[in-house]
Amino acid sequence: MADETTLTVAVVGATSLIGEELVRLLGERQVPVGDLRLLGSLRTAGRKVDEATIALVGPDAFDGVDIAFFAAGPTVASEHVESALRAGAIVVDVSSRFRLDETIPLVVPEVNAHLLSGPVRPQLVASPSSTAVALSVVLSPLGEASGIRRVVVSTYQSAAGAGKGAVMRLSKESIDLLSGRGDDADERRTRRAFNCIPQVGALEPGGATTHELQVVEEVRRVLERPDLAMHVTAARVPMFFGMAASVAVEFEDALSEEAALELLRGARGILVHEDAPDTLPTPADVIGSQATHVGRVRSDPTVGSGIALWVALDSVEKGAALNAVEIAEILLRGRT
Amino acid sequence: MADETTLTVAVVGATSLIGEELVRLLGERQVPVGDLRLLGSLRTAGRKVDEATIALVGPDAFDGVDIAFFAAGPTVASEHVESALRAGAIVVDVSSRFRLDETIPLVVPEVNAHLLSGPVRPQLVASPSSTAVALSVVLSPLGEASGIRRVVVSTYQSAAGAGKGAVMRLSKESIDLLSGRGDDADERRTRRAFNCIPQVGALEPGGATTHELQVVEEVRRVLERPDLAMHVTAARVPMFFGMAASVAVEFEDALSEEAALELLRGARGILVHEDAPDTLPTPADVIGSQATHVGRVRSDPTVGSGIALWVALDSVEKGAALNAVEIAEILLRGRT
Repeated sequence: MADETTLTVAVVGATSLIGEELVRLLGERQVPVGDLRLLGSLRTAGRKVDEATIALVGPDAFDGVDIAFFAAGPTVASEHVESALRAGAIVVDVSSRFRLDETIPLVVPEVNAHLLSGPVRPQLVASPSSTAVALSVVLSPLGEASGIRRVVVSTYQSAAGAGKGAVMRLSKESIDLLSGRGDDADERRTRRAFNCIPQVGALEPGGATTHELQVVEEVRRVLERPDLAMHVTAARVPMFFGMAASVAVEFEDALSEEAALELLRGARGILVHEDAPDTLPTPADVIGSQATHVGRVRSDPTVGSGIALWVALDSVEKGAALNAVEIAEILLRGRT
Repeated sequence: MADETTLTVAVVGATSLIGEELVRLLGERQVPVGDLRLLGSLRTAGRKVDEATIALVGPDAFDGVDIAFFAAGPTVASEHVESALRAGAIVVDVSSRFRLDETIPLVVPEVNAHLLSGPVRPQLVASPSSTAVALSVVLSPLGEASGIRRVVVSTYQSAAGAGKGAVMRLSKESIDLLSGRGDDADERRTRRAFNCIPQVGALEPGGATTHELQVVEEVRRVLERPDLAMHVTAARVPMFFGMAASVAVEFEDALSEEAALELLRGARGILVHEDAPDTLPTPADVIGSQATHVGRVRSDPTVGSGIALWVALDSVEKGAALNAVEIAEILLRGRT
């Protein structure tokens, strides 16, 4: 166990894209980590990451842990979050496991950090999907001003959201195609390289995908608007990292382009890009940035009061790892 | 001049992506071409294409020409369409030059071929942008049934729409990055490879781009709905060919998902994909197809009557060259 001024931190799923970014951010943000326990499943336990060895996650893995980040999938969260809680650790889960559980706070610090600072602080907090983080950060200031009537979103999501395997697959497919290999006609429909796939998650009855339905429910929870009308189409585009979304918002009350820009510029965590060539936010340009980048802000004259915009962010860093670390930082501040 | 049963056909801009595809389609569709004149500007004149040499486009280049396809830019159309018309040729222009000219028909054969078969047949016809072709083909049958109130579109457009140079640039950038070269931080914002650029065309006052504004006006003209409320965000994604669009349509009257599917399945030129994994239409899979592919057709419960869908097509072949050839075929049928 670490001494009183430092923390014992566990990262479950330490070899995932988000897990690796979490470890990096803990260092960069100078979180006083005395003991860092990298945990993984049977598949990854024993591997070396820098100097550390991945230990097997299990019932006893959380003894003495102050904070446990779960950067693995929902199954791992289902199996092991309870052990971490029983051991007394604060748990921040980045998987989808608890995002729609009404008894667990779902937090985007820019929007609803107040859920972390009540008289009884939550011991378990869920971090939303990066798509929901991006939309919540942008819709919150606009909605507070003018009341959101409806939102129509189309996303441009990278391989990173599907994990390291998907990033490697995109790389291999790209290289194969550019080398004149591997353009198999049978596989063109599901090819990731130089293609767009209009499906993120599994197709559900009704025609939406699990991811699209989850994003809507997550944003509703974060904005505390359980009836929010939001239509999402999520597509995978051939980028390794980052994501973007094209967002058209309809408001109850009038909201001019100038007023919308003012609100967005004044909002925490948002960086507004000027509407000029070569200054628009693109996913490749915002990799490594901890802001939510917004551009193409313009009035939409096809509705009574409408604003359209483009949002881009680093989905692994800003959309997942940083969101989780900030949640932990706020909870820890409350402890001292 | 060719004999009476064959045609003399000129293709201006014969070395462009669309020009090359036009020449290929004329052969594939067995258009009775006796004499094929490949024309180009000073930059391309003299080049060899297969066995033919590109001749310089100029005032005398159209003597004896029955049909002239203009597959070059709007400047070339401005300069040389008049010569072709004066020489008595039927002209189909694929550039943006005449698309918004109220005196020139803008035609998508599946939608408004009647403009080609009146008592006085037009000598000059404009072919819309591939984005407008895709949207017109899909919106026409749906709108006839239930009346379109508003459309929100986000596009996923390939390098091909910006021409051969853009295709080569995407290839070079992709290879450089996959080889560990050329990831210049200064150029990340405008990098095409593994990135999305939320700008097609120039940014205009009001925040839309020239392309977005043109697509709206073109669809309005083709559907004969000058007041159609349509919001478009056009983005360039790192694909070489093809395009896709995420489309959310609001209707005046009720339209069920089943009724929408029925209308789309029955419409000319549309291929509806079943809503199952690995059967959704993706741009890579529809390259070389002469259909407009539609998938992810679903009710949008966020409006009174709404249908969302995903459309994918080969923007060079179906969206431009085939559209132009079909226009010419219909005009020629009227001649015999």
